[in-house]
Amino acid sequence: MTKFPRTDQNRINRLPKRGHYDRETIYQILDEALICHVGFVEKGQPYVIPINFARIDDTIVLHGAKASRLLKHVEAGNPICVEATIVDGLVLARSVFHHSVNYRSVVLFGKGCPVEDEQEKLAALKAVTEHLIPGRWDEARQPNRKEMNTTRVVSIKIDEASAKVRVGPAVDEQEDYALPVWAGVLPLQEMPLSPIRDEALLDDISLPEYVRRYSRKG
Amino acid sequence: MTKFPRTDQNRINRLPKRGHYDRETIYQILDEALICHVGFVEKGQPYVIPINFARIDDTIVLHGAKASRLLKHVEAGNPICVEATIVDGLVLARSVFHHSVNYRSVVLFGKGCPVEDEQEKLAALKAVTEHLIPGRWDEARQPNRKEMNTTRVVSIKIDEASAKVRVGPAVDEQEDYALPVWAGVLPLQEMPLSPIRDEALLDDISLPEYVRRYSRKG
Repeated sequence: MTKFPRTDQNRINRLPKRGHYDRETIYQILDEALICHVGFVEKGQPYVIPINFARIDDTIVLHGAKASRLLKHVEAGNPICVEATIVDGLVLARSVFHHSVNYRSVVLFGKGCPVEDEQEKLAALKAVTEHLIPGRWDEARQPNRKEMNTTRVVSIKIDEASAKVRVGPAVDEQEDYALPVWAGVLPLQEMPLSPIRDEALLDDISLPEYVRRYSRKG
Repeated sequence: MTKFPRTDQNRINRLPKRGHYDRETIYQILDEALICHVGFVEKGQPYVIPINFARIDDTIVLHGAKASRLLKHVEAGNPICVEATIVDGLVLARSVFHHSVNYRSVVLFGKGCPVEDEQEKLAALKAVTEHLIPGRWDEARQPNRKEMNTTRVVSIKIDEASAKVRVGPAVDEQEDYALPVWAGVLPLQEMPLSPIRDEALLDDISLPEYVRRYSRKG
């Protein structure tokens, strides 16, 4: 099945034309987004925490310190919402009312569980590192025993998900097209600036290709 | 009072040195972040929705369609969490374990209420537009009666808030500094690309300065 079913939980009610339920669209957004925003509930109170992540097939993996409250809460199997959004541009209409943002967002729901198997845990850490910057896992020193022991890894099976996407130009009221107001789209993109070499770096180490060519675009 | 008190809800437990509770730091991050991520609870289930926003003094204002489920839920006075994050760069350490992200994030808590007074509602819409792109409110056509009537505006008084900030270079284990691994920071920034002029734009309208010079940095 390549589509998630539409439920009361994941259905796009506002502007349903912007809704997408296919894995291809949803997973492309998740893979491009650098960070996600994890929502959980404690004693009726909502919390939202930004965190690095990776997708492995139909699961989201998170990692962090053993003591992390967020990770312990996820690991315990509580209901979790994960949201990720990429902003693609500002939509400047002739009227304030029709201003908008071009964006691609995913909201997904699932329950967490611990990742404790040594190989699965290592695969999750590799996925999170490669999500951050592809090519890095093979260059950096990989986790040792002590580091593995102090790291908590959890996974969230994606039970329901949907994407919401806005693309394209401003849409104005017919009578506003005659107004002398600049209209258009200002594209935005998360771009790398010049890499900053670590001060203690050994002299003969040159910038890796995967850093020089870094881009969030797939 | 320029600091938010530390409570069980807003206290930074993991890496407390990264925690900030002063309004100056928190509000600078909120004002620079383009969108926020609103967390709420319905029937025990967490939801996180990305949305435009603005800060006015000690409140967050949101706007959208009258039918928006999120806004109705906020307006009803339910507990809300708002999170906003700016990613400043990738921190590439010599070990996978010490990889990190330079970021500035805010997590805040409050309860919502409707904004119905005509002048307050207009001020909120102006703030949201100017948050998106300063200078736009005075150029675009402002909301008419019909548009005001179909727009819902809500505000969330910030009861508790904290920021978490990581800056600076990678920090590696002493013995790893001898490894032949490139280390450093790859700065990331949300940058505007070339503005795309609307196809139906009148010929004699030139690109406004505030679009040409757009930057999220204050």
